[in-house]
Amino acid sequence: MESNYSEKIQKIFKNENIDVGSMIQIISNGQAFEGLLMPRVSGDKNSIILKLKNGYNIGIEFNSSAKIKRLEEKSVDLGKFEKKKLEHDPKKPTILILHTGGTVASKVDYRTGGVVASFEPKELISLFPELQNIANIRSKLIRKMFSEDMRFEHFQILAREVAEECHNVDGIIIAHGTDTLHYSSAALAFMIENLPIPVMMIGSQRSSDRASADAGMNIICAAKFITETDFAGVAICMHGSSNDTYCNIFNPCKTRKMHTSRRDAFQSINDMPYARVWYKEDKIEFLKKDYLRKDKNRTIILKDGFENKVGLLKVYPGFDLGILKYFEKSKYKGLVLEGTGLGHAPINEIDEFTKINKDTLNTIKKLTKNGCVVVMASQTIYGRVGMNVYSTGRDLQEAGVIPGEDMHPETAYAKLKWLLGNFSKEETKKMIAKNLRGEINERSEPRTFPPSI
Amino acid sequence: MESNYSEKIQKIFKNENIDVGSMIQIISNGQAFEGLLMPRVSGDKNSIILKLKNGYNIGIEFNSSAKIKRLEEKSVDLGKFEKKKLEHDPKKPTILILHTGGTVASKVDYRTGGVVASFEPKELISLFPELQNIANIRSKLIRKMFSEDMRFEHFQILAREVAEECHNVDGIIIAHGTDTLHYSSAALAFMIENLPIPVMMIGSQRSSDRASADAGMNIICAAKFITETDFAGVAICMHGSSNDTYCNIFNPCKTRKMHTSRRDAFQSINDMPYARVWYKEDKIEFLKKDYLRKDKNRTIILKDGFENKVGLLKVYPGFDLGILKYFEKSKYKGLVLEGTGLGHAPINEIDEFTKINKDTLNTIKKLTKNGCVVVMASQTIYGRVGMNVYSTGRDLQEAGVIPGEDMHPETAYAKLKWLLGNFSKEETKKMIAKNLRGEINERSEPRTFPPSI
Repeated sequence: MESNYSEKIQKIFKNENIDVGSMIQIISNGQAFEGLLMPRVSGDKNSIILKLKNGYNIGIEFNSSAKIKRLEEKSVDLGKFEKKKLEHDPKKPTILILHTGGTVASKVDYRTGGVVASFEPKELISLFPELQNIANIRSKLIRKMFSEDMRFEHFQILAREVAEECHNVDGIIIAHGTDTLHYSSAALAFMIENLPIPVMMIGSQRSSDRASADAGMNIICAAKFITETDFAGVAICMHGSSNDTYCNIFNPCKTRKMHTSRRDAFQSINDMPYARVWYKEDKIEFLKKDYLRKDKNRTIILKDGFENKVGLLKVYPGFDLGILKYFEKSKYKGLVLEGTGLGHAPINEIDEFTKINKDTLNTIKKLTKNGCVVVMASQTIYGRVGMNVYSTGRDLQEAGVIPGEDMHPETAYAKLKWLLGNFSKEETKKMIAKNLRGEINERSEPRTFPPSI
Repeated sequence: MESNYSEKIQKIFKNENIDVGSMIQIISNGQAFEGLLMPRVSGDKNSIILKLKNGYNIGIEFNSSAKIKRLEEKSVDLGKFEKKKLEHDPKKPTILILHTGGTVASKVDYRTGGVVASFEPKELISLFPELQNIANIRSKLIRKMFSEDMRFEHFQILAREVAEECHNVDGIIIAHGTDTLHYSSAALAFMIENLPIPVMMIGSQRSSDRASADAGMNIICAAKFITETDFAGVAICMHGSSNDTYCNIFNPCKTRKMHTSRRDAFQSINDMPYARVWYKEDKIEFLKKDYLRKDKNRTIILKDGFENKVGLLKVYPGFDLGILKYFEKSKYKGLVLEGTGLGHAPINEIDEFTKINKDTLNTIKKLTKNGCVVVMASQTIYGRVGMNVYSTGRDLQEAGVIPGEDMHPETAYAKLKWLLGNFSKEETKKMIAKNLRGEINERSEPRTFPPSI
């Protein structure tokens, strides 16, 4: 598997008599690293992976001025590496890790050479050794899947697991792919009410064979937040800046993945994060005071229904009315429109090119008349819809469209699916624009909009 | 029309013998304002609108400690107000304003009491008197419409107008509703190549009867940028911060409305703004150097075709495969997928709930096999798709999906519509991920991601 390293690196390995399992030293940019050479499976062929003595894997970017040498004659059998005994410490709190997939707890399988999910406590602890100092770790494999494949059925499974386990442990960490983490967090927040303990959702933007791996810090910060604060409820714990200074604890309904690859890809939408957990300093700073407090005697309320016939549809210049008609013909029960600006859609007939617009308004009317709950959110993502400002918004409201306040489209969608799966249509209409789980802020704080560059 | 003010204000007006057209003084929060009382048509009933001596309308928020008194006995006939003679100054450059609608040049019509678009030069100059010091103003009404109603047919009309006029004037300002301004700017940037002059697109987030009206500053900054720099090409000029310090000059293909209502709602996506124009200081600062320079001898190239059968589709947990099949059955020629994360879609079969996912992949395969150009952009908005990192991305590429680099979905959509309207399918496939107008940056600059809060 050293053949997966670049040719340049392989040449040096050959010269220095280095194999996978060799203890080696790399001096690069004035820094020295010592550790076991790990096999390379995928990713950057110029990054050398070492297992350091503290148990961490690290990826070191190779440059031509780096010096590499073998330190010991004997190589380690990596297959037998990392067998540690786990002892339950009754003085420590217990955290349950529910693993669904994603890169957060993946590591190289030394037999197959593939990247596999680690879900056994001892494997997790060998990956993130600091966990053992913080809590007793239990773990459970839910799925091994990319989060883009997840459906509400999986969110439901997670909600049920949390409901079943939340009275047995002090906190739960859900390891989840980042792609749909914010859909999942919103769905969970609605499905589970009155949580006695904290449930932290974490993910990882960089795989563990890269120098910039973020899984370790996210899971450690989540564990620290669980054990050191009085917070209860669902939250997301992810990097808050592009370096390893702190994680943000995000509102599960007001957060969104806003970058394809950055470690601080998750951003608060129309809200402040609950708190920041500093990684190296022993500091947790709360930015909000209105959160649920831990209470072991509180009984969880699980409402895990959801309605499948709910859609999310963006309107845009030249959008195909046929799609809107598809929802109407398919007898959808709910639809979130991702409108433009303050919550608009092309419904006004102005000239020969906009004749179709009247049909758009009529189709929306038909949808609401036939019992579909239509909710407006904005594709601007930030801000609050304002459907009394222009005639377009007023006309849409007259057609039965309900303004979704300051919910971003994904949260409005998760909420509508959940409401229609647990309540009547009339109840849904009353509750959709009412704050239930911190998904709607009555007042917009200017500082919650990221400053323009 | 004073009846549209709040009851409290009306009472004071009655006591002070104040009518619309009266010259009055308001002392509020230690500041004194003098001007003609304007009628109020819509918006905040507690904001009093004065026409100041410099010609500007200002909205002053009323608070109970404010002092209001009438200054002169005679009221002004507002209907006859503002008749000024416009003289052409041959020493000044000439700017053409193309008006499409939106609040940017709307004002109260004193006869009907409604808000109407102002498009005659003299009316524009009475609204924004500083314009006259900067340039000779010509104006042309294209449409009076909300931008949410715009279609590519309108973008085409704008492109043709620009092509027709760009050799007659020194710069063009396009006044446009903000809802779809960034779709329109991207479409224009593609339709028009080799512009000899600057074409600035401006909008307004707040109507002119509010204290926070932004139209004036946006149009003045655009005019200053046109007359004081060597920039040529299409750009957006909008507030760069929440106060009146500067406007940003944005790349038409890498900018997006990111807030429903803030004046600095437009943000650069994966790019820096070209420049900042300070409003009160006499300063223009360039942040980028790679832009087209003015050249009166350059001949514009107009390619104004577009393909109507191009769609934009977001995937999300529980999305309806029927929509994807609709595009397939309707023989779409192009489709931009708004995928999750690095450019993913639910295509992997994991368990009994994800059986539908195989069908998703097959439908995508069918689309591309039948000649539809399918392009991936990310719903994270920021960042670059990376479809070689995970098997999902690789499988989608094998199914024929083309990674859209760091284009955000709206720009990828505008580009695909334009390419398929002017070039063959094969040419489109080659050009979609190649930079043509600054819509793709080869390198991602970390500072282009707004810092997390």
